[in-house]
Amino acid sequence: MRNENFSHLECPLARTLSIVGEWWTLLIIRDLFYKINTFDTICEDLAISRNILTDRLKKLEKNGIIEKQLYVERPKRYKYQLTKKGKDLYPVILTMVAWAEQWESPKGKVVLLKHDGHLIETTTICRKCGKAIEPRDVQVEIGPGASRPDVLPLPLRPNAGRK
Amino acid sequence: MRNENFSHLECPLARTLSIVGEWWTLLIIRDLFYKINTFDTICEDLAISRNILTDRLKKLEKNGIIEKQLYVERPKRYKYQLTKKGKDLYPVILTMVAWAEQWESPKGKVVLLKHDGHLIETTTICRKCGKAIEPRDVQVEIGPGASRPDVLPLPLRPNAGRK
Repeated sequence: MRNENFSHLECPLARTLSIVGEWWTLLIIRDLFYKINTFDTICEDLAISRNILTDRLKKLEKNGIIEKQLYVERPKRYKYQLTKKGKDLYPVILTMVAWAEQWESPKGKVVLLKHDGHLIETTTICRKCGKAIEPRDVQVEIGPGASRPDVLPLPLRPNAGRK
Repeated sequence: MRNENFSHLECPLARTLSIVGEWWTLLIIRDLFYKINTFDTICEDLAISRNILTDRLKKLEKNGIIEKQLYVERPKRYKYQLTKKGKDLYPVILTMVAWAEQWESPKGKVVLLKHDGHLIETTTICRKCGKAIEPRDVQVEIGPGASRPDVLPLPLRPNAGRK
């Protein structure tokens, strides 16, 4: 499988995609939220090859998203657990699920996500003002962490020539 | 590039990934939110090959996420515009950006997203009760749109044998 790299883009979205944007990765993380957390059960659940699963788990561990835990001594058996960094990906999964429910569920919802006894209605707001974040209201500016103005998104690049 | 397919999984996350989970697709959608919306400017902004961009734009159009608009008659020039379905992907992008800002921005934020004069603090809540959605509070049940119980996530499969 081709390994794409977004390191030429100085953009937080590209950074997230570099880590969790490979095929299968977010589905593996979903499984860990479901407590499907051993190599064999993830393999069975997603019906993916052992090679790909090994590769993805290694990358997730290297990036601090999961931790491997020994749970049987003989023979050695491991389970995988999301770190805080990994658990913080839950909103990404929730917003993707909400989008599919809205736009790609012609026969109705396939899974029902509930809490406190009612169906969840996912919505993304700004914690500071409590308002929904509408694309048209958002202004984008260069932040202090930007080191390479040449790879900023085009509208933020100094002297960017727009065609 | 290998084309993965998640159609053997009956899961809303898999459905969203089938449509926007390919390398580059979410970055192209991000560009459209930035009004970088012609073939040449997207190509320049992301530094991707024309082949890949052509492929991704076709798929996005086919899936009803973008529309092509003629904006110059001679020579024919098109720009791409997000449909309502495409604009509804904004929360997916916002939550990915928020995650990178939290976990993968050692030198500080690269871009600042503001609205109403303040920095956005993205948070995902349940519209019904106004509460944050914590993974541990969420119960998952089979919905009315589930047609293939054999491809439901493992914990929801009838008679699923857990190892």
